Amino acid sequence: MFKGLSAFPLTPFTPDGDIDEAAFLRILERLVSAEVDSLGVLGSTGSYAYLTREQRKRVATLAKAQAGAIPMMVSVGAISTRQVLDLADDAQHAGADGLLLPAMSYQTLTEDEVYELFDTVSRHVSVPVCVYDNPGTTHFTFSDELHGRIAALPRIGSIKIPGVPADPAAASARVQQLRKKIPASVTIGVSGDAFAGLGLNAGCDVWYSVCGGLFPHTAKAIAEAAARGDNAQVTVLTERLAPLWALFRRHGGSIRVMAAAAGILGLTGPACLPRPLKPLSAAYCAEIATVVEALGLR
Amino acid sequence: MFKGLSAFPLTPFTPDGDIDEAAFLRILERLVSAEVDSLGVLGSTGSYAYLTREQRKRVATLAKAQAGAIPMMVSVGAISTRQVLDLADDAQHAGADGLLLPAMSYQTLTEDEVYELFDTVSRHVSVPVCVYDNPGTTHFTFSDELHGRIAALPRIGSIKIPGVPADPAAASARVQQLRKKIPASVTIGVSGDAFAGLGLNAGCDVWYSVCGGLFPHTAKAIAEAAARGDNAQVTVLTERLAPLWALFRRHGGSIRVMAAAAGILGLTGPACLPRPLKPLSAAYCAEIATVVEALGLR
Repeated sequence: MFKGLSAFPLTPFTPDGDIDEAAFLRILERLVSAEVDSLGVLGSTGSYAYLTREQRKRVATLAKAQAGAIPMMVSVGAISTRQVLDLADDAQHAGADGLLLPAMSYQTLTEDEVYELFDTVSRHVSVPVCVYDNPGTTHFTFSDELHGRIAALPRIGSIKIPGVPADPAAASARVQQLRKKIPASVTIGVSGDAFAGLGLNAGCDVWYSVCGGLFPHTAKAIAEAAARGDNAQVTVLTERLAPLWALFRRHGGSIRVMAAAAGILGLTGPACLPRPLKPLSAAYCAEIATVVEALGLR
Repeated sequence: MFKGLSAFPLTPFTPDGDIDEAAFLRILERLVSAEVDSLGVLGSTGSYAYLTREQRKRVATLAKAQAGAIPMMVSVGAISTRQVLDLADDAQHAGADGLLLPAMSYQTLTEDEVYELFDTVSRHVSVPVCVYDNPGTTHFTFSDELHGRIAALPRIGSIKIPGVPADPAAASARVQQLRKKIPASVTIGVSGDAFAGLGLNAGCDVWYSVCGGLFPHTAKAIAEAAARGDNAQVTVLTERLAPLWALFRRHGGSIRVMAAAAGILGLTGPACLPRPLKPLSAAYCAEIATVVEALGLR
């Protein structure tokens, strides 16, 4: 299941801080009808870290009911191992086909501690696990050696890397270097949408995509070009989206921009992020609306 | 309540990952009989970030029953504002005399988002709040201007700063600079135990102390010297503890060292931290035992 386009939907909230289930189903409907290769539910874009155990169970259950034949991956990240195991149980009961596991930290973690987390979880679960390497939010940085040790564990199916170098040759070298450390059965997926084209052309098997969680057709065209080996078209299509990546950079990441875009499309209310995250200003939203329109994002 | 020595106890765990209530009560008993000025329950040292809502409620309730007349502060940190409000309700029901509120983050927070968090919480609660400025674990850095805006809110009683510069004159300048931005009713407390002496001599009103959570007599001697204005004695007593601060630095912070020390004292089992945190090796524990003995920590 860890290949092609994996779309990461927002989990929208009401102004009162409850999950906006109707809005969530509207977002999922777009992804299902676009036939993305998998759903990445409750990723960072899906605000897993802001939700209670009960809320996360509910979101996974709703998504599974909507997903049909599309495989569903669910993040089970938590600061304590005990809570990760409980969340993994819940996700599997809700029908998760795969689990996404970050190394969330509060106290700074050692490599041995992160290895033991993955070892404990991989022995506990019965579906494949994707290693979520996201130092920007977890503040833990994986070495390639640690990736190699973890990828050799049972049930590890993929590694979601945070990006690749901006130079195509360096991007290829980076993916090949990691590839040498891990079993052939473990796929490598690129995230950080601005790096998607570079990562796919450098040999990544999957795009773990924020953009694809709201604009599945736009993202799918890129993943399909990569699947047929048309590197030039991948580059054209991703470079065309430069104004979107610029918005992500300006607003400290993708989530605030995607939340604004979901409101602009009428899928969610104007303030759909969990507090303390605040919606962007009306002026920024107008700018985002212009980019969505100009690029024909869909 | 935000003055003198505020002692931050560990929350010890059993090897199965449950709270070791008997061990927790043994640790609290030491603090109560030493008559520390306040308890800082469920701080970073108390592993608040690793516990469920129910576990946090239980820990606060146990501590209150043991605390007697000693004021109890409870951390209500969480990544989502909704959860912070629930935790604040729970802590107050458990009898908290004050709340400790960090700016925990997953997505990087803006100053306005953190201000709104404190504004929301300060309007919601009925006990004083201590601002917990701890970028090492929360990855949010407060500007002095933001401290000033927050300190002007109702119910803000103290600011727990992460440390001071190593030079005494620079430490004084730093504390005075912050002091100018905040109301006179808001105290400033130093944390990062290695900076305690410098911070107290620089005019901090309180020591939010990890060391004091296990060795209350040792810490209290320093706080008492500060209270009577004996800066020279504060310096002598804190510099004497340099081997302990060196252990903290070597092991990426204080919590792993204090957990080992609690085991060495027979207060907890040898592996009392919540997973994924692992206990230090036997060789390191032997070294820690030597330092505890040599310095007569108690």
